[in-house]
Formats: sequence, C-alpha cells, structure tokens
Amino acid sequence: MTTKIWRGFASDNYAGVHPEVLAKLEHVNVGHQVAYGDDEITAELSQVMKRHFGNTAEVFPVFNGTGANVVSLQAMCRSWEAVVCAAGAHINVDEGGAPEKVAGLKLHTIPTDDGKLTPELIETQAWGFGNEHRAQPKVVSITQSTELGTVYTPEEIRAIADQAHAKGMFLHLDGARISNAAASLGVPMRAFTTDVGVDIVSLGGTKNGLMAAEAVLVLNPQFADVIKYIRKSAMQLGSKMRFISAQLLALFEDDLWLRSASHANQMAQKLYDGVKDVVKVEKPQANALFPFLPAEVTEELQKEFRFYVWDHLTGQVRWMCSWDTTEADVEAFTALVRAKIS
Amino acid sequence: MTTKIWRGFASDNYAGVHPEVLAKLEHVNVGHQVAYGDDEITAELSQVMKRHFGNTAEVFPVFNGTGANVVSLQAMCRSWEAVVCAAGAHINVDEGGAPEKVAGLKLHTIPTDDGKLTPELIETQAWGFGNEHRAQPKVVSITQSTELGTVYTPEEIRAIADQAHAKGMFLHLDGARISNAAASLGVPMRAFTTDVGVDIVSLGGTKNGLMAAEAVLVLNPQFADVIKYIRKSAMQLGSKMRFISAQLLALFEDDLWLRSASHANQMAQKLYDGVKDVVKVEKPQANALFPFLPAEVTEELQKEFRFYVWDHLTGQVRWMCSWDTTEADVEAFTALVRAKIS
Amino acid sequence: MTTKIWRGFASDNYAGVHPEVLAKLEHVNVGHQVAYGDDEITAELSQVMKRHFGNTAEVFPVFNGTGANVVSLQAMCRSWEAVVCAAGAHINVDEGGAPEKVAGLKLHTIPTDDGKLTPELIETQAWGFGNEHRAQPKVVSITQSTELGTVYTPEEIRAIADQAHAKGMFLHLDGARISNAAASLGVPMRAFTTDVGVDIVSLGGTKNGLMAAEAVLVLNPQFADVIKYIRKSAMQLGSKMRFISAQLLALFEDDLWLRSASHANQMAQKLYDGVKDVVKVEKPQANALFPFLPAEVTEELQKEFRFYVWDHLTGQVRWMCSWDTTEADVEAFTALVRAKIS
Amino acid sequence: MTTKIWRGFASDNYAGVHPEVLAKLEHVNVGHQVAYGDDEITAELSQVMKRHFGNTAEVFPVFNGTGANVVSLQAMCRSWEAVVCAAGAHINVDEGGAPEKVAGLKLHTIPTDDGKLTPELIETQAWGFGNEHRAQPKVVSITQSTELGTVYTPEEIRAIADQAHAKGMFLHLDGARISNAAASLGVPMRAFTTDVGVDIVSLGGTKNGLMAAEAVLVLNPQFADVIKYIRKSAMQLGSKMRFISAQLLALFEDDLWLRSASHANQMAQKLYDGVKDVVKVEKPQANALFPFLPAEVTEELQKEFRFYVWDHLTGQVRWMCSWDTTEADVEAFTALVRAKIS
Repeated sequence: MTTKIWRGFASDNYAGVHPEVLAKLEHVNVGHQVAYGDDEITAELSQVMKRHFGNTAEVFPVFNGTGANVVSLQAMCRSWEAVVCAAGAHINVDEGGAPEKVAGLKLHTIPTDDGKLTPELIETQAWGFGNEHRAQPKVVSITQSTELGTVYTPEEIRAIADQAHAKGMFLHLDGARISNAAASLGVPMRAFTTDVGVDIVSLGGTKNGLMAAEAVLVLNPQFADVIKYIRKSAMQLGSKMRFISAQLLALFEDDLWLRSASHANQMAQKLYDGVKDVVKVEKPQANALFPFLPAEVTEELQKEFRFYVWDHLTGQVRWMCSWDTTEADVEAFTALVRAKIS
Repeated sequence: MTTKIWRGFASDNYAGVHPEVLAKLEHVNVGHQVAYGDDEITAELSQVMKRHFGNTAEVFPVFNGTGANVVSLQAMCRSWEAVVCAAGAHINVDEGGAPEKVAGLKLHTIPTDDGKLTPELIETQAWGFGNEHRAQPKVVSITQSTELGTVYTPEEIRAIADQAHAKGMFLHLDGARISNAAASLGVPMRAFTTDVGVDIVSLGGTKNGLMAAEAVLVLNPQFADVIKYIRKSAMQLGSKMRFISAQLLALFEDDLWLRSASHANQMAQKLYDGVKDVVKVEKPQANALFPFLPAEVTEELQKEFRFYVWDHLTGQVRWMCSWDTTEADVEAFTALVRAKIS
Repeated sequence: MTTKIWRGFASDNYAGVHPEVLAKLEHVNVGHQVAYGDDEITAELSQVMKRHFGNTAEVFPVFNGTGANVVSLQAMCRSWEAVVCAAGAHINVDEGGAPEKVAGLKLHTIPTDDGKLTPELIETQAWGFGNEHRAQPKVVSITQSTELGTVYTPEEIRAIADQAHAKGMFLHLDGARISNAAASLGVPMRAFTTDVGVDIVSLGGTKNGLMAAEAVLVLNPQFADVIKYIRKSAMQLGSKMRFISAQLLALFEDDLWLRSASHANQMAQKLYDGVKDVVKVEKPQANALFPFLPAEVTEELQKEFRFYVWDHLTGQVRWMCSWDTTEADVEAFTALVRAKIS
Repeated sequence: MTTKIWRGFASDNYAGVHPEVLAKLEHVNVGHQVAYGDDEITAELSQVMKRHFGNTAEVFPVFNGTGANVVSLQAMCRSWEAVVCAAGAHINVDEGGAPEKVAGLKLHTIPTDDGKLTPELIETQAWGFGNEHRAQPKVVSITQSTELGTVYTPEEIRAIADQAHAKGMFLHLDGARISNAAASLGVPMRAFTTDVGVDIVSLGGTKNGLMAAEAVLVLNPQFADVIKYIRKSAMQLGSKMRFISAQLLALFEDDLWLRSASHANQMAQKLYDGVKDVVKVEKPQANALFPFLPAEVTEELQKEFRFYVWDHLTGQVRWMCSWDTTEADVEAFTALVRAKIS
C-alpha cells in the first residue's frame, strides 16, 4: 500500500492506530462477551475511569466525537432548551448540523478570537430565562483544547462552571483533544474537569491513536441514569462494545494517552521553533499551529505535505501534529517551508 | 480473562472478531490516510462492492446496524413520509425508537407470523396516498434473514419490490444477517438485492465476525448523492474510516462472509437435529432456532448456557449460532437440553 | 354562498361556529391586550378552568387538536420515551405522523375492537422498563369519546390511571370530543379526568362549535411549568391569544359545551332509532354512528349527504352529528337510508 | 372590561381584530363546509391570491407566523440542509428554537446593522457546498419589513434572489409585516416577491388586524405539492379552515391590508415627527421606531404606555404602531415623551 503521498500535517485523524491499541484489541478477542456493554472489558474501563476522574464518574463508550457531543448535550437539555457555545465550536461548524438535526438543539453561538469562551462572552447569550420566545440556555459547551489549538487553564474552566451553575445551567467539555490539553498543562485530566465542576465530558480517543473510540464521561451523577437511553436512540451503542472499551483501556494503560499527546505537542513545538522566524504564527499551546501563509506558498507546500487552509481570506492554515508525527516529518517540512518562504 | 460463563447461544454479537479481520486491521495500519472516507482502503472497498452487487452499487460504511437502517430510510423519505415494516422488525422493536427520534420517521407496522412481509400484508398499510392526514407510505423495509430466523426467496423479494415500485415506493433491505440468508439460499447476495429491485441495503458485518462495521449499500443510483450528508448528520461518519472499510474488505476476501455464515447456519442445523425429537421447534432457515420450552427447563439451561427468552407468555426462546460456535458447543448444549427435558 | 351540497354527517368539523362564540369574539375585541397570553381574557379562562377541573388545573390554549396532543405528550416524555395508545388513536392514524415528526415520539400501538384500551391491553405494550433497546413506555394516551364513538366510564379511566401510575407512567386523555363524552355519561368533565387521575387533557373545543380553539389542560402540577416552552417551540402559541381564550370561555358560559354536545348526542340517538331496524349498527354512546352498509347503498346516500367510509373492506361508514345537526337533517337522512336499503 | 392600561406601542399583536374581519367571519358562518381546506372560502382565497401574486401562486393558510416560517423552510430543505439568515431574524431569536426543534433546521446566522442581508453578507455563510461536515446552505431567509423596521427595495431583494438561485439555493421572505413594507414602498406585494424571484413567502395577517391567520404562499411551483403534507405534520392545518381563509380574504377586500398598514406607517411617521428633535431615532421605514432613551425615561414612560426595551445595554427601545393606533394615542405619547425628556 502506498501511503507516502498522504503524509503531512492535515489532521490527527489521518494517523493510524497506536500498536498498543491493536495489541489490546487482539488481547480481548477471546471467547464470548455479553453485547452492548455488559462485558468484562467495559466493567474494567468503568473502574479505570473512576480512578482517573473520581468516584462519581460514569463512562459510556460511543463511536465518534459528534456522537459523544450530541449524547452529552441531549442528556442535559429538554426539548425547549439550548446550548451556548463558541461560533467556531466543532458542534456548530463541523458536525453537519447533527446537534440540531438529531437532537433539535438550538445553539446560541458567540464569536471568539481564539476559540475560548469567557464568563463575559457567555453573558452575551446566557439570558432570557423564563421567556418562552427564547430557546432557554441550559448548557455551556467548551472545547479543550479548542478548535484553534488554545488551552483553557483549570481556573478559567472553574470560572465558567461556577457561572453556569449559578444560572442553573450545566457545563459540557468537548474533549476531542483532551489529552493534548492535559499534556500541555502538565496536569491530570481531572484537574480541569471533575475538580472544577464540569458536568459531562466528551472524552476523545480517536485523534490520539485509537481506531474509533470516544466516550460520554458523566461527572455529575444526576445525568448518569439517562445516558444509556440516549446513547441507544442516538445510534451510538456498539454491540460488540468490548472492542471500543478495549481501545479506551489501552489509552489509559501505562499512560499511553500522555505519551502520545506529549509527543504530538512536542512535534508542534519543534515545528514552531523551526519556522517562527520566517512565518507569522502563535506559539502552540497543544498539538496544532495556525500560521498565516501567502497563498502561493501554501500551494507549493501542499504539493508535498497535506494540511488544511483554515481561512481563505486571511491565508491562515492549520498544521496538526499527531502521535505518529516523526522528527523527520517535522524536519523535512520545516526545511521545505523555509525554502519556499525565503 | 475468564470467558467461559458467557458462552452460549445468546447472540452473534457475543462472539468476537474473526482472526482474518484483525489481521486486516493490522495490515492497513500503515502511515497516513485521508480521513472520513477519502482513503485507499475505502476506495478498494467500493470496487469490491461493485463486483459483488453490480456497477451501480455505492457503499457507505457506518458504525452499526441501527445507523445503517436509519441513514438508508432517511435517504428515501421526506419529512412527511413513512416506512411500512413488520411489527417485529428490528427498526420497530429494538432500536430504542431511533427511526422516530433521530429521523422523525413514522413506522406503519404489520403483524406477521414468521417475520416476513408479503404483498398482501403490505397492502394493509400501503394506502392513503395523497391524503395528508396519513403519514405517506414511501418505503417498505424487510429484514433478510428476518428477526425470526426466516429467509425470503429472491422471488418473494422481487414481488415486494415490484409492488413497492408500482406504488411509487422504495424497498429497503435490513441485511444485519444478510450473509446467513445468502448462505442458506446458496446464492450470491446480489441475487436477492440488486437483481430483484432492492433500492438500498443495510449491509451487515458485525454479527458475522466483524468488530464494528456495517454499510449503507445504495443500489438505486438516485440515492447515491445524498447519503454522505445523511451519514454525517446522523453521526455515522467515522473519521479513521479505513479501519471500518478494512473490516468489510476482509469479509469479502476469500469469501469469509460465506465461510462464516455457512458455519453458523450448519451449527444451527446440527443443534436442530440434536433436539428436534424432544423440543417443539421449526427447522432453521439460517443461524437461529426459536424453540418452545417449559419455563423451568429454560431456567435450568440458562445456568450453563446463555440465550434469550423471546416470549415469556409462550415460552419461546432464541438460540443463535455464530461464526465461532463450535461443534463441541452444540454437542454439550444438545446433551444438556436432552437431559433437562426428559 | 351555496352550502347545501356540503351538508350531512361527515364531521363535526364541517359545522360552523356557534353564534354565542362569535358574539364572545366580538365582545373581547376592545382595545389593546398583552399578546401571547398575558391578557385579561386568558386570565379569566384560567379561573373558569380551575372551577371546572379543580385548583391544580392550568390551562394553555392552543390552535388545534394535534397541537394539544403533541404538546401534552412532549411534556411527559423525554427524548427516549414513548407513548402507549390504541392502534386506531387519532395520534397514530390521523395526525400525519406529527407525534413522531415534531416530537420524535415513538408510539407503541395496540389493536382494539372498540377504540378503548384496558389495563390488560396496556400490559401488552407497557413493558421493557430499563431496557434501552426499547423506547421506554412513559405515557398511556386514551381518547374520550374514542375515535369509534365509544365512551370510557370514570371507573375504567381510573383503573388505567392507577395502572399507569403504578408503573411510573402518566395518563393523557385526548378530549377532542370530551364534551360529548361528559354529556353522554351525565357527569362533569372532571369526573373522568381530575377525579380519576388523568395527568394532562387535550381539551377539545373546535368540534363542539368553536372556530379554532383547543387547550392543553394540565391536571398534574408537575407539568405546569414546562408547557409554555413546549407550546411555543411546537408553534402552538397564538399571539392574539385573547381570541382563542374567548372561544373557550364561551364554551363554558351557560354550559354551552353541554347544550351543544347533548344536542349532537341526541341527534345521533335519533338517527340510530330511525335506522336500527334496517341497518347493522351499534347504539351510539356519543355523537357518532358506525353502521355497516352495502357499497352501493353508501354510494347512493353520498349523492345527497356527506359522510365518510371508515373501512372499505367491511363497508363500515361513519355518521357524525354536530351541534348544528337539525332534526330535519336527521329525518331527511333517515328517510333516504330507509328508501335506499329496502 | 378594563383595557386602558394595556394601550401603547408595545406590539401590533396587542391590537384587536379589524371590524371588517369580524364581519367576514360572521358572513362565512353559514351551514356546512368541508373541513381542512376543501371549502368554498379557501377556494376563493386561492383565486384572490393568484390575482395578487400571479398565476403560479398557491396559498396554504396556517395559524401563526412561526408556523408559516417553519413550514416554508421545511419545504425547501432536506434533512441535511440549512438556512442562511440574519442573526436578528425572528426565526433565530423569537421562535423558541422552533426551526431547529420542529424541523431540525440548522440556521447559519449573520450579524447585521439594520436587520437587512446583502449579497456580500450572504457570502459569509453561503459556502461549503458539497462538504458534508457543513450543514448545506439551501435557503436564504429575509424579513420584510425587518425586525428592525427597515424595508428592502424590490431591487435589493432581486439581487439576493439572483444570488441564491445562482448557488442552487432558494429565497424565503418572512412577511409578518409584508403589508407595512408594501405600503411604505408604494408598490403591490408582488413587486418585491413574485416579480423579483422570491420562492416562498410567509404571508402575515395577524399583526395587520386579523385574529389568527397567516399563510404559506408558494410562488415557485416546484414546492406547491409538498406543502400540504408539511403543514399537516407541522400541526398547522386548521380543521375549520374557512375561518382562517375568511380572515385573509377580508384582508384583501377593498384593500384593507393597505388601508391598515398605511395608517400604522403614518402613525409611526407622526410619532417620529413629534419626537425627532428630542430623541435619538432613525426615521421609520414602516410602522416601528427604535429610539434610544435613558433608562429612567423609559421607566417613566412605561408607567403610562406599554412598549418594549430592545437592548438593555444601549437603551434602545421599540415603539410599534398598529392598525388601531389613533392620532390621540400618538399625541398623548409624544407629549409625555417630550415632558419626560426635557
């Protein structure tokens, strides 16, 4: 199989599966297990999640990130309620309208500079309580690390959680790249979830070396009972669930999540160091850079490395590193960038 | 890992993954591939499906059977349209209301004796065209093999397809166990799909030895363009799709689908032969038996082998064989049944 | 305006508006009133409803019966929950799939002989609690009087309410013809709603001489807070609500509801008395007859009087009387029936 | 009935029903008519609408404006498609999320200064065609007159229609106050709808003196066949439709729509003339003013006249005139404003 032409910095979804994950899949492929989550591997995962996120944590494996997000949000919203999120949030711009179409959720969106919400920004949409003409704000959803590669501190998330709870709202954290955020902050994931008041987390795995495994991680116990019904009716209940749970288990064995995410972050940093004097780009907070390039340079670079243009008007592009980005990848790309720019 | 206590005849979803499938996953785990289906493995799968189902066939891998069904049905129905199906259809009784809840689909249901629809039965619900008070029947959905283990002949399906098309309706085939049906009939799958007028197939894989891989298989080209949008907004678009496609590819390599399904069917036949003189049970048409047992016998048997009670009132139970059911499994269970009944 | 050709026994929706209702509309058409329900007329209606249905009753006027039903059911169901109802219920057969399409509600339907559910019948669908593969039964919905013209006694409804509550479910009563039922039973409406445990009533008015006015009548206070949001997002909130409320007020002034419904019921009885010796027909319990006629007789009759065929296979037709059916209408029709049959 | 305290400039929904409309309701209240729209009055309305909007126009009466909007948009969108609209559009901010919740519609919203979209603004959201990660833009929805009281010229609407059609999109016009816009422009309604390429209009009536009557007015014949199904399943099909159609007929008899709207517009102009030297306010284009007031002035004024604060941060308020606003109302209010401000 030729694979060379695909290589690059397009997405952590272009990367394959970490060998430890494949090994785990083989390991659990023994005999029969009860379907739909009543299996031993999922039971073990539940225990591991409690150790990582605290005893109230309940984990519900699902197939993909959109599924995790929509199931999470539906658990916290009745049919007349709505979600406050950044205009650039994945749930608003990259899920084909799934929150609206699957769950009827209204999104109250807020423009941001860097992908991060603040209590001040949230105030601009978290209003109208009791007025039935306005879809009632019930959940704030943030992404960690954000779609623009930025990272919330635990204190920033705590402030948002406190604000949401004071208003009778809940806080959802889309953790498609939660490992990269934790690695960047140098803290365990619970430091910016359980410990600061997040109610439900979409726990990402696929972008960090899994095959297809995410989870709804319920931290607020009042929502634990309803998820199983929502997961089923939202078509996110896997029959042979042991193989989804096994991937998530592998992610937490020997801190694979941290090893992989730290590596991806370091590769982004190395790339930054290699080009920062010739390219307009912010220092990466996780595993992505968002540099600004002349269109003709982008075009030249894309002949040899894959990556996405983020904003055609400004020339901003996205360079994403993954668990399998090599030093050689970065060095070759850095050299090419420098050659094309100068 | 202890697995002995789970073994039995509960479901083909209790079985693991066929070793050839795991090997395939490892084989495609090389380098980068474009995410969301623009990868080389999915491209190869498309070719393989055209060889098996004809040149108009377009394949769209998804995560699970409910997803395949709801995406398929949504492609053929506008918001005011409805689906005619058996009352015992999986879409009606085992999907947590997903067709209604995700897609707003009304199901016009028809009681059946054996899980199979006929043109006469379909007439009882395919009416009211042009009357806006009735959700407009637009799709007939059948299951092959059915939820009661029965199998439609190609001619039976052709008659239903002709009827549906004559009414301006379309035909969906839920093929969660399509391999078992084809193995039972001794024909290729296209003989009762493409060749007899089925419009869209939910192509099953998971129950026949895959990990988590099904597909929407579009045979009527008028629906090929819309599936990608529906799959995305229905949260069934896998990012690292090469690993779903690889499973489906493995299923069609060296006729794994046929080897596995034939084996499961044979094990059901062997079980039937072993108990038919002591138990009230129909001869199996695919890989499942639906015997009637006294409640106390069921209880005794379930202490050693897993299986489901299908109808508490009648004592009917379900014994399902899978690709990994062994002759020893069948012999041990047969012996136990005979011991408990006599 | 020619109107003669429309006259007949097709539907109580073919009748016009009672003059007292039009007078009431004119009466409230003075000056300004706050829109969307914060007006004096709606406030008065609230008080009247409390007098009729008890102090916990909260009334929410809506536009039509489908709206009343879907708003009511949505209030009691979360997204994974379902409604148990008769297969012939209006919500299942005559609302264009609105419960599924607007609210994602799964209906678990039960065939009946006479349109009435019983605890025994309800048992056939009220099961599977805790099993996420089954859309969770949460509401029983009955119609009073039923779509087949039959009437539940208060005791029958109490038995269903008790059963529902014992299972953690709720009871909805579709009262599109609630006045006719009360008139038939000779009791106030509360005798078979508030007093026997109904949780929410769809209070019908249009079929009994109003122009376009129904209401969600909440008897179980736990649902009072949520209706306003659901009514709005279900597009059933009238801006100039005083004119909907005024119609409902008129209905309860000087017992207009009872006068009109009693009259319609009596006309049905008179029609029954006039044809019972020549036609196969059950004695009417409210304002409708469901006789069986030879197709050619039906055809002849329909040349002069409008009515609907209910079942083409059996020849059953529906003759519906309304508040404005006259003795002359009944006598003329009776004579024609007798002439055509003999 | 006391009504004095409600009087003011809060909303054209606070006004009552024009006497000519009540008279029309009485006029059509004769005998029986077929329910659900097959009546003579609705047939007459169809002819009147064709005279006003051209021969392709098909009218479908509904209950309210949200209903008209959501039915219209659903007709033009498949489940994966989306609507481009102003962030301040009624469908986005004042319908309780009905477009998302009833119809699963994603709204791609655009901030505006004055409530009006332009081709340049539309470009910012009308992109991503063919990319399934983005809910596919299919309809542009504009409001005439806008929620901020501004009016599009026919040429401005033609430019938007041409742009939409060039992209394979359609144009919806929310005409809740279409009469006021036409009166302001001094043209018939068709000049900025049929004649410039609008595909479907939500034809408003209630705000201009009707009781509860709006319509989906289909100008692009490709959508005429589907509306009846959508109207029914969206719970907007009135049973005694003659009384909705009669209101709309009354609106077009003797140009009542124009007389009423012109009057309301003139009252707004008179109010403007009376306060423009003491208040910061734009000249009204239709029947509303949006002045900026100190909070304490607003508070004082609201003790005697009702009106809404539009933006608490800026002090902007809304003064809306209606068909029944009197010169005396305006003069009294003008005097009060001048007294409180100076």
